Amino acid sequence: MGIVVQKYGGSSVADATSVKRVAQRIVATKKAGHDVVVVVSAMGDTTDDLIELANEVAPLPTARELDMLLTAGERISMAVLAMAIGSLGHEARSFTGSQAGVITDAAHGRAKIIDVTPGRIESALAEGAIAIVAGFQGVSQTTKDITTLGRGGSDTTAVALAAALGAEVCEIYTDVDGIFTADPRIVPTARQIPKLSYEEMLEMAANGAKILHLRCVEYARRNDIPIHVRSSFSDKPGTWVVRTEDVDTMEQAIISGVAHDRSEAKITVVGVPDKVGFAASIFNALAEAQINIDMVVQNVSAAATALTDISFTLPRTDGQTAMTALARLQDTVGYERLQYDDSVGKVSIVGAGMRSEPGITARFFQALADVGVNIEMISTSEIRISVVVAEALVDAAVNAAHAEFELGNDEVEAVVYGGTGR
Amino acid sequence: MGIVVQKYGGSSVADATSVKRVAQRIVATKKAGHDVVVVVSAMGDTTDDLIELANEVAPLPTARELDMLLTAGERISMAVLAMAIGSLGHEARSFTGSQAGVITDAAHGRAKIIDVTPGRIESALAEGAIAIVAGFQGVSQTTKDITTLGRGGSDTTAVALAAALGAEVCEIYTDVDGIFTADPRIVPTARQIPKLSYEEMLEMAANGAKILHLRCVEYARRNDIPIHVRSSFSDKPGTWVVRTEDVDTMEQAIISGVAHDRSEAKITVVGVPDKVGFAASIFNALAEAQINIDMVVQNVSAAATALTDISFTLPRTDGQTAMTALARLQDTVGYERLQYDDSVGKVSIVGAGMRSEPGITARFFQALADVGVNIEMISTSEIRISVVVAEALVDAAVNAAHAEFELGNDEVEAVVYGGTGR
Repeated sequence: MGIVVQKYGGSSVADATSVKRVAQRIVATKKAGHDVVVVVSAMGDTTDDLIELANEVAPLPTARELDMLLTAGERISMAVLAMAIGSLGHEARSFTGSQAGVITDAAHGRAKIIDVTPGRIESALAEGAIAIVAGFQGVSQTTKDITTLGRGGSDTTAVALAAALGAEVCEIYTDVDGIFTADPRIVPTARQIPKLSYEEMLEMAANGAKILHLRCVEYARRNDIPIHVRSSFSDKPGTWVVRTEDVDTMEQAIISGVAHDRSEAKITVVGVPDKVGFAASIFNALAEAQINIDMVVQNVSAAATALTDISFTLPRTDGQTAMTALARLQDTVGYERLQYDDSVGKVSIVGAGMRSEPGITARFFQALADVGVNIEMISTSEIRISVVVAEALVDAAVNAAHAEFELGNDEVEAVVYGGTGR
Repeated sequence: MGIVVQKYGGSSVADATSVKRVAQRIVATKKAGHDVVVVVSAMGDTTDDLIELANEVAPLPTARELDMLLTAGERISMAVLAMAIGSLGHEARSFTGSQAGVITDAAHGRAKIIDVTPGRIESALAEGAIAIVAGFQGVSQTTKDITTLGRGGSDTTAVALAAALGAEVCEIYTDVDGIFTADPRIVPTARQIPKLSYEEMLEMAANGAKILHLRCVEYARRNDIPIHVRSSFSDKPGTWVVRTEDVDTMEQAIISGVAHDRSEAKITVVGVPDKVGFAASIFNALAEAQINIDMVVQNVSAAATALTDISFTLPRTDGQTAMTALARLQDTVGYERLQYDDSVGKVSIVGAGMRSEPGITARFFQALADVGVNIEMISTSEIRISVVVAEALVDAAVNAAHAEFELGNDEVEAVVYGGTGR
């Protein structure tokens, strides 16, 4: 049997008891005949505690030192996990990101993996040991300094190692059973999705589904690594994320799920002269301020005034920076005023099936209209339709879409889970 | 001006406030024109907390993983200290033991430094930065695994770096003002010693003085690195530890200090046949059990019985192991019985001046007799006399010796500190 990479998040290794439970799961996988490589995040709230400590001594800690500090978190969890496995009678060796060969660029706090050279991991596996690797961290190719990949980077570490080792699967363990058709806290009838394509998962992740991070899915898609998202608290099968051609078309729903996102704000630049280059200067200013904008809508110019309105969405955390950058442009661009609205939400339906099924947009919009939800902005991709609505109406919109496309159908769930006996 | 290496212990960086205070001291040294390399221990009780965590998941954690775990402690303190210096407007870069080039053997938990290749430290200094180095840790030359030097290893890291960098001094910061003529908690009139030779410091450290560790002093002596032990809570001059020829003979007392040690036990093997090889077989058994014995006394054989008693002292923590190892020998050696006594203490007077001063032993023993202290065992070196006494009499013995050799003389202290104004 081949190599299995397993990633455990902070909530799965929050305390000694959790660590021991995870150790038993790892040993079971080893006993089943697999070579096992484990990627682990920092225990529970360790990372937040370390950030708090940093802020106590320095209001603006340098990025290099913040990375050095935060990487202590996984160092603790991986060593403790290796010990717990050792006391079950199996050899486990822990490796830092640097020791595991996770080579990154030098962008502290948001480094990108540029190469993985897992020679020490391969040696450990060849000698029969279980390898435990610190997630979230690497070493800069140029400066040799320790780097971190940013929040959620441990998923990316796991997939990158799986790719470099030629693993047969990358299992992402979390505190929920898998990816759901919608957030179960909003839609009680939401059901777990057995299988999703990389493309669908990318759209879900980019539009608010928080289980997997965009970069991790992108890396898996590029390297064709199957991801299995599952719970560390049960043995249930979770959600597989695979190539489109590996999703059985018979079980492929038209719409796979409904995602939502309350982290964005909407800015409208009112009364922009409808002339060549004026819109470009606005978006250039935002790009220079390092702001990622999401959706953009430009209203049709009212011929009488030759003025237009430009609306766009962006992370709320960038709201103040964007407003400041835009305010500086008022004299040169000559717009009338800025409107800032952070009481908006985004609701998206995602499904590879919509490619070949006409009328999905109409059904989605009608379902929203039927529950009184007004659509403020629209954007679409080949397999996704997103709308911006008032934040207070997000729950109603998610439920309406979920019901319209029958995502909570109990019969489907019975078929999918019929064979597992759990 | 040259390079100054400063080492701060865990109590000096116990919390954010302490870290900031230490940062100011470091910046002051930098502003005075020195290149500064700082070696730092883990904050406060971090190491103990990590050991407790390890014990929660594994009763006998593997040594490799315990080292991986414990090194997270200095990683946190060094990064936080570098940030604190950064927020004072000076550049500081932190380095792990491995990054600082501290190469050790592979003996986890008690590794020995075999080389120091501080290329990255030198680069940082050349670029005007302050270098912060994790104490207590290194990397194995053979396995490339992370190692620790054992408790107190940070002092050794500091001296080893000072030697490799050609520093002009290694400053060891602690929570007391320096080395004292006796433990001030036992002898209220104890005074701080301004200057000691390496040899005297070695004898003091080996016989219970806890401020500096034996290995660190040995390393400094071999590489001729002056050590300055001082408080991180004041600007007072502390105690210099230097070559014998650099100790001004005019200020050289006959006895420099009185050390005591309550960590030992005494074992007596009663009724050993007084024949060739029988004593050897006892000490071979102890050596095989990895027990370091300290003092040994063999009583003169009573001619009538041709039996003798052998007494020795050893760390109390090894007592059980030693008794078990000796019990196995009873049949082959044929001794009568074993006596175990852990209510003993050792009191030592140390001073290079005793080389040229006859009668010291007599004065020491008389002083003990005058306060009713019975001597159970004796051992001596060229510059030290140690006695084993009942544990309950240790304080009385230390005070008697301190008074006999006038170590608390106020006039001497006034001369020594006369010029400092503090």
